[in-house]
Amino acid sequence: MTQGYRVAIVGATGLVGRTMATVLCERHFPVRSLRMFASARSAGSSLEWNGRSIVVEEARPDAFADIDLALFSAGASTSRELAPAAVAAGAIVVDNSSAWRMDPDIPLVVPEVNPDDVAWNKGIIANPNCSTIQMVVALDPLHRARGIRRIVVDTYQSVGGTGNKGVAELREQVAQDAAGVALTPNVYPHPIAFNLVPQIDSFLPDGSTKEEAKMVNETRKIMHAPLIKVIATTVRVPVLCAHSEAVHVGFERPITPDEAREFLRRAPGVIVEDDPSRSIYPTPRDKIGRDEVFVGRIRSNDVFENGLSMWIVADNIRKGAATNAVQIAEELARRGLLANRKERLNVVRG
Amino acid sequence: MTQGYRVAIVGATGLVGRTMATVLCERHFPVRSLRMFASARSAGSSLEWNGRSIVVEEARPDAFADIDLALFSAGASTSRELAPAAVAAGAIVVDNSSAWRMDPDIPLVVPEVNPDDVAWNKGIIANPNCSTIQMVVALDPLHRARGIRRIVVDTYQSVGGTGNKGVAELREQVAQDAAGVALTPNVYPHPIAFNLVPQIDSFLPDGSTKEEAKMVNETRKIMHAPLIKVIATTVRVPVLCAHSEAVHVGFERPITPDEAREFLRRAPGVIVEDDPSRSIYPTPRDKIGRDEVFVGRIRSNDVFENGLSMWIVADNIRKGAATNAVQIAEELARRGLLANRKERLNVVRG
Repeated sequence: MTQGYRVAIVGATGLVGRTMATVLCERHFPVRSLRMFASARSAGSSLEWNGRSIVVEEARPDAFADIDLALFSAGASTSRELAPAAVAAGAIVVDNSSAWRMDPDIPLVVPEVNPDDVAWNKGIIANPNCSTIQMVVALDPLHRARGIRRIVVDTYQSVGGTGNKGVAELREQVAQDAAGVALTPNVYPHPIAFNLVPQIDSFLPDGSTKEEAKMVNETRKIMHAPLIKVIATTVRVPVLCAHSEAVHVGFERPITPDEAREFLRRAPGVIVEDDPSRSIYPTPRDKIGRDEVFVGRIRSNDVFENGLSMWIVADNIRKGAATNAVQIAEELARRGLLANRKERLNVVRG
Repeated sequence: MTQGYRVAIVGATGLVGRTMATVLCERHFPVRSLRMFASARSAGSSLEWNGRSIVVEEARPDAFADIDLALFSAGASTSRELAPAAVAAGAIVVDNSSAWRMDPDIPLVVPEVNPDDVAWNKGIIANPNCSTIQMVVALDPLHRARGIRRIVVDTYQSVGGTGNKGVAELREQVAQDAAGVALTPNVYPHPIAFNLVPQIDSFLPDGSTKEEAKMVNETRKIMHAPLIKVIATTVRVPVLCAHSEAVHVGFERPITPDEAREFLRRAPGVIVEDDPSRSIYPTPRDKIGRDEVFVGRIRSNDVFENGLSMWIVADNIRKGAATNAVQIAEELARRGLLANRKERLNVVRG
C-alpha cells in the first residue's frame, strides 16, 4: 500500500472527470495507477495526466478488476449500471451522480461537514450536488454554533454545471448575439446568453425542479438535520464557471454578523471575504480554479427570528464536484478504508 | 387643454429619458409640445421623436416656464437642484431619481398599486426604484387578498439599470474576454462579463446596499404596509435589459399557488406565465420592450407560515422606469391634476 491506490475515473473525458484527474495530482493523492473510462464513443482517445498519456477505455461492467477507488462522474444511469459492478469487483466508488444520494444505505458526504459518514459505506459513497456542497460547507459551522431552522437560497449557477456542452452553448450564443442572428437553444430550454433560465433539471409535481429538491433533501441528509426547512430557487446564469448563492437563514439562537464571520474564519474549507467598504466580496469569475468556499455580504435580516444573510461562491467543478470527491477518497484513505475490499477479504482469509 | 400638455423630459439623452419619449408616443399621451433637456454637454444635439427632430436644450433652473409636466431622469443631484425650480414655474414633476422617494411629503407611486397617492402631491411625484416597482406590482394583489408579512427577494438585475454606460461596459468586456485580454471594470466595481456583482449602489452601515434598502423602504411606502419585513440581496448579472427576482413570501392567511395565479391573472399590469410542464416561465431576454410584469414559478414554500415563492421579470427601463412615470402622468391627467399650476391659479384668481 505504500505505493498508493489503483484509481479509475469513469466519465474521464467530461469537465468534472478531467478535473478529478487534475485534483488527484495537485493534492498528491497516492495514485499507484490511473485508468480512464468513458463511453464507447470516447474509448481509444488519450488524455494527458501527470506528464504521461493515458488511453481512454470503454466503461463496462467487467472493467473494474484490480481497482481500489473508482471516481464516477458519468451521469446517473451509468452509475446505476456500473457502480454496483465496480463494488462487486472490490472497488470503493465515489459517485458524483444523483443516482445514490438519497439512498438511506449510502453515505452522502462533504468532508468538512460529515466525514464520519464515510465509515459506514457499503462500497458506494455519494458526492452531493454542487450547489448543496458549497452551501453546507458555509452553513454547517453556523448550524453547530447556533442551530439553523430555516434557509431560503436563490442560486446563480454557471453553465459549467452542465459540463462542456453548457460552456459551448453559452459561447456559441454570445457569438450568435454579436452576429445579430437568432440564438439557438439546445442544452437549455431557453437562450442563456445575456439571459437567465430559472429551471435547472426537470420539474417535480410540487412546482420545484429536481435541482431545488436536491438542495432541500441533500442539505438535511449531509447536516443530519431532517427538520431544517429549506426553499430554493435555482437559476442558470450566463457565467462560465463557479456558482453563487444568496442565502437567508433563521437560527434557533441569536447570532451577529461578527460572530458568524468568526465561526466561518475558523471553519475548514471556508474563506471569508467580507469588507463592503472596499467592495470586497466573492464574485464567481475570481473563484474559478479555487477549492475553497467563499463567503461575503454577511449581515442580519429581520425576516427571520435570529436572521442572517450571506453570499456564497465556489467553483462548482472543483469544490462542487471533483475536489469534494477526491477529499472523500482522502478521508477513506486516512481511515484505512481504501484497500481493495476483495484483497482485504483475501488477506483476512489468509 | 384639448390640445394636450406641454411636456419636458429632463435627462432626455439617457436610456430612460429616450424610452420616456417613446412611451409617451406609444401610449398616445396627449402631448401638445415636447422639450428635451440634458446636461450642457448634450445640449445642441437633436433627438428624433414622433417623426420630428427636437433640439436638446441645457437643463437649467429657468428652463421650465410654460411646462405642464416634467419627467425627470437625470440622477438625484440634478433632481434636487432642478425639480423644485420646475415646480415653482408651475410644472408637475414625475421624478425617476431616488432624491425624493422617501420624503414623507412626496407621493411614491405605482399606478397599479397606489394610484390615489397622486392626489396629495405638492408638485413632485416620485417614481420608485425599478426592482421595487416590478415586485410590488406582483405582490400587492396578493397582499390585498391574504396579507403579506415577510418578503425575501434576491434580484438578478441587468446592466440596463445602469443606463447606456452599463450596457457598453458589458459589451466591451465580452469583447475583451473573447480577445483573451484582461477585463477593465469602470462602471462596476468588478468585471460583469460572465460574472456577477452582488453590489448595486453603495453600502450602508448595516451591510446592505442602498439598492437593497430601497427595496425594503419603498415597498412599505408604496404598499402602505410599514410592518412588512423585507430582506433583499441585489445582484448585477450579465443580462442587457430586464430585471428578474426570486421572491419568497410569508402571508397572514393561507394561499395556494392556484389562488395566487388567479389573483394575479385578475391584477392590472401582470401577466402570469407559469406552466413548468412546458418550461414556460418568464426570462428577461423575452421581456425586453414589454410594459407588463411577468410572474412564473409560483409554488408553496414551508419556510414561512403560509409561504409562497415566485419568479418575477420586467423590463426595468420600461415598467421599472419610463412606463411607470408615464402611467403616473396618465393618472394625473385622468384626475385633472396636470394643468399647469400657475395657470390654474390664474384661472382661479380670475
